[in-house]
Amino acid sequence: MELADTRRPRADRARQVADLLRREIVHGRFGDGNLPLEAALAREFGASRNTIRAALDLLRDEGLIERCPGVGTTVAAEKYPHGLHRLLGLAETLSEHGRVVNQVRAMGFVEPPAAVLDRLGLPPGESVVYVERLRRLNGLPLSLDLTYLVRDVGEPLFDADLVHNDLFVLLEGIAGQPLGMAELTVEAVNADAHTAAVLEAPRGAALLMVERLAHLADGRPVDLEFIRFRGDRLTMRGHLRRSPEGE
Amino acid sequence: MELADTRRPRADRARQVADLLRREIVHGRFGDGNLPLEAALAREFGASRNTIRAALDLLRDEGLIERCPGVGTTVAAEKYPHGLHRLLGLAETLSEHGRVVNQVRAMGFVEPPAAVLDRLGLPPGESVVYVERLRRLNGLPLSLDLTYLVRDVGEPLFDADLVHNDLFVLLEGIAGQPLGMAELTVEAVNADAHTAAVLEAPRGAALLMVERLAHLADGRPVDLEFIRFRGDRLTMRGHLRRSPEGE
Repeated sequence: MELADTRRPRADRARQVADLLRREIVHGRFGDGNLPLEAALAREFGASRNTIRAALDLLRDEGLIERCPGVGTTVAAEKYPHGLHRLLGLAETLSEHGRVVNQVRAMGFVEPPAAVLDRLGLPPGESVVYVERLRRLNGLPLSLDLTYLVRDVGEPLFDADLVHNDLFVLLEGIAGQPLGMAELTVEAVNADAHTAAVLEAPRGAALLMVERLAHLADGRPVDLEFIRFRGDRLTMRGHLRRSPEGE
Repeated sequence: MELADTRRPRADRARQVADLLRREIVHGRFGDGNLPLEAALAREFGASRNTIRAALDLLRDEGLIERCPGVGTTVAAEKYPHGLHRLLGLAETLSEHGRVVNQVRAMGFVEPPAAVLDRLGLPPGESVVYVERLRRLNGLPLSLDLTYLVRDVGEPLFDADLVHNDLFVLLEGIAGQPLGMAELTVEAVNADAHTAAVLEAPRGAALLMVERLAHLADGRPVDLEFIRFRGDRLTMRGHLRRSPEGE
């Protein structure tokens, strides 16, 4: 019996194979970067070579693999895991994968709209520190981060090394206490033309969009971020429990 | 002082405004579905009307709003929150937003490749139950789910009402114990042509791709899922803590 019912449309069978292969690629099964030949994959997945080819086409279109006639199929880009099990900065979570370097695209005081003030628990008229960074891992653009910081922890950042440090580590040094909890929203959006250019990705590329409000350990919200990760370069990994937290 | 430095390119300022507006739309600030006029938004966000217009264009391209000359800007589609704080089925997590109905596209025994057997802790040659469902909320396609289940908990599903129930609830009834923990990987991918057609989304639409391995409370892995959520219909929301779990 095959993996997928051969009476089903090939596109459905290809999707099944692609999902299984995607996981193996992302988790580094093909350490040397070379995928097995189509015939071997066909045997392994109990699928026809045409189905395997269609599955590889899907993964190529995602930017995960490259296919060269006569050479075979190779892993095109590493996809890095961002820990979803605890609140981590990018350099922290990717420390074993390489060096994160940040380009500060903008930094200054702004008078934000109510949408920002409300989230940071600030009164009308208060100014905050805005920081915008393009973050690269091993030279490749990984994310574009738009950050609003309450003034007392944000202002000392003007004298800090933002190029080589996560904000989280710097903020904890300034505040004299660790961060506590963060609220998180994760979405998938298509890159608009300008964002795509900044991230050096194709227009329309799928981005993992994260909005994150981080609080100090004492509960005060201090750091509101809007982060666009390149979908072809990053995954988020974590655990969920069935019973509510604390039970 | 304005929200964004006017010396910056308009596209950068528009992205800032769009991110703040996106959050307000997703969190239901505009309960009646109507956004304020451009002039009012310009005042609120301390931005020019051209910047506001560019920001609204970005959100329109994401499918979040519609803009009609003479009528104004309206919220186009509700974006539903999927709880990321605990392990929940779709109908459970969206119970207050409407009714989830599942179309079973395929169901049967398959002999899966090592990639599935390894994850489910099964020996070579073991067969599993494969279920593929298109899931709709209030009639609109929300996700396409590919599921591999260990045989003893999967087989009784042939007699169950998969159309109106989450798998999680059914599995817990069959297993006689609650689910425990799930490992989760979240990615953003572009929809291929066939998946886009199934989900009734534009080709290339950003999808939130979730791979999830759910264990019973006793620790046994039983349910491996590959889920594609429409990015314009769903967000995932949760909390992270700075200190490692359990500390």
